[in-house]
Amino acid sequence: MAAPLEFYFDFSSPYGYFASTRIDAIAAKAGREVAWRPILLGAVFKVVGTAPLVNYPLKGEYMRHDLERQARLFKLTFREPPGFPHNTIAAARLYYWIHDRDAAKARAFAKGVYAGFFERGSDVSAPEAAVAIAAGLGLGRDAAAGALQDQAVKDRLRHEVDAAIAKGVFGSPFVIVDGEPFWGSDRLDQVEAWLTTGGW
Amino acid sequence: MAAPLEFYFDFSSPYGYFASTRIDAIAAKAGREVAWRPILLGAVFKVVGTAPLVNYPLKGEYMRHDLERQARLFKLTFREPPGFPHNTIAAARLYYWIHDRDAAKARAFAKGVYAGFFERGSDVSAPEAAVAIAAGLGLGRDAAAGALQDQAVKDRLRHEVDAAIAKGVFGSPFVIVDGEPFWGSDRLDQVEAWLTTGGW
Repeated sequence: MAAPLEFYFDFSSPYGYFASTRIDAIAAKAGREVAWRPILLGAVFKVVGTAPLVNYPLKGEYMRHDLERQARLFKLTFREPPGFPHNTIAAARLYYWIHDRDAAKARAFAKGVYAGFFERGSDVSAPEAAVAIAAGLGLGRDAAAGALQDQAVKDRLRHEVDAAIAKGVFGSPFVIVDGEPFWGSDRLDQVEAWLTTGGW
Repeated sequence: MAAPLEFYFDFSSPYGYFASTRIDAIAAKAGREVAWRPILLGAVFKVVGTAPLVNYPLKGEYMRHDLERQARLFKLTFREPPGFPHNTIAAARLYYWIHDRDAAKARAFAKGVYAGFFERGSDVSAPEAAVAIAAGLGLGRDAAAGALQDQAVKDRLRHEVDAAIAKGVFGSPFVIVDGEPFWGSDRLDQVEAWLTTGGW
């Protein structure tokens, strides 16, 4: 069976959230799976020399307008959480900790974090908020809270982020299909075309 | 009659070139005209705090890959000129000088400059190269060369760039439809949908 699509995203990335609502269905049409891989854009930006879009004059204002307009076009629930952008290190660490125990629950956890940020418009960046989402999926609250203090869990995320950068990932969302990189939620149609045609 | 679509671009922008091959047809389907408005990304980047994409690690390499891949997908001739990115001030100044004399020739001039850069892959950033393209359209070589020294022509371009920034233009291509801003060649489908539906 073909390798899964690699779906890289930051939990604070609204375009990553948009992509998360479509990527599984796009892959499924082609009989493919998706490996969800949260990363930390802060670490990526240090390598690339960029900053969150909202920090740029004109561009930041446009981004907010574009997000609202696209949400209406694609009929997505979209609420911007206060204080954007957010530090998503707790959610990302917890994702990989859950993933090593139960991949399906990790997917549900990721969707739960995105729902918190962008469907409810809540700031779920705090460790306790991430732990609460994990607990809601039946994972032990104390075990999850403890995992966030575990050096092995911290190292796991660092390794994932470094590996993503080594593969050329510099933004969110970023999808790799059989080695072929696609950046941005506006490339998902081309991801779909690539899967359908086998590339061009 | 409805106001023309405003199509902002830098002559050194390959995504601007891609958009230039589609924008007139998209507008025509809706019975609309397009006002082509070359700008200088260098001036815009100073305001926004960004830099040419190729200057960023990872992002620059991806951009080259994405350009080649999109050119194949859309069946566009695409050759990258040497020394990219280029100073396009001469071409942009000459564009507005021609425009004030003959709007149709200005459009042909703009297409000629883009063809030089991205169909032939030639560096046509030198003033003599821009003048030669104008001369090829029947404009006087000496008059065109003289215009490039004219303070009024220089001021005209500066005014256009300032006005673009005042409207929120921060990249290339950038299309404004009845006040609605769209950034990037990957938003042209949404430009088309906006024209068809009247917005959403």
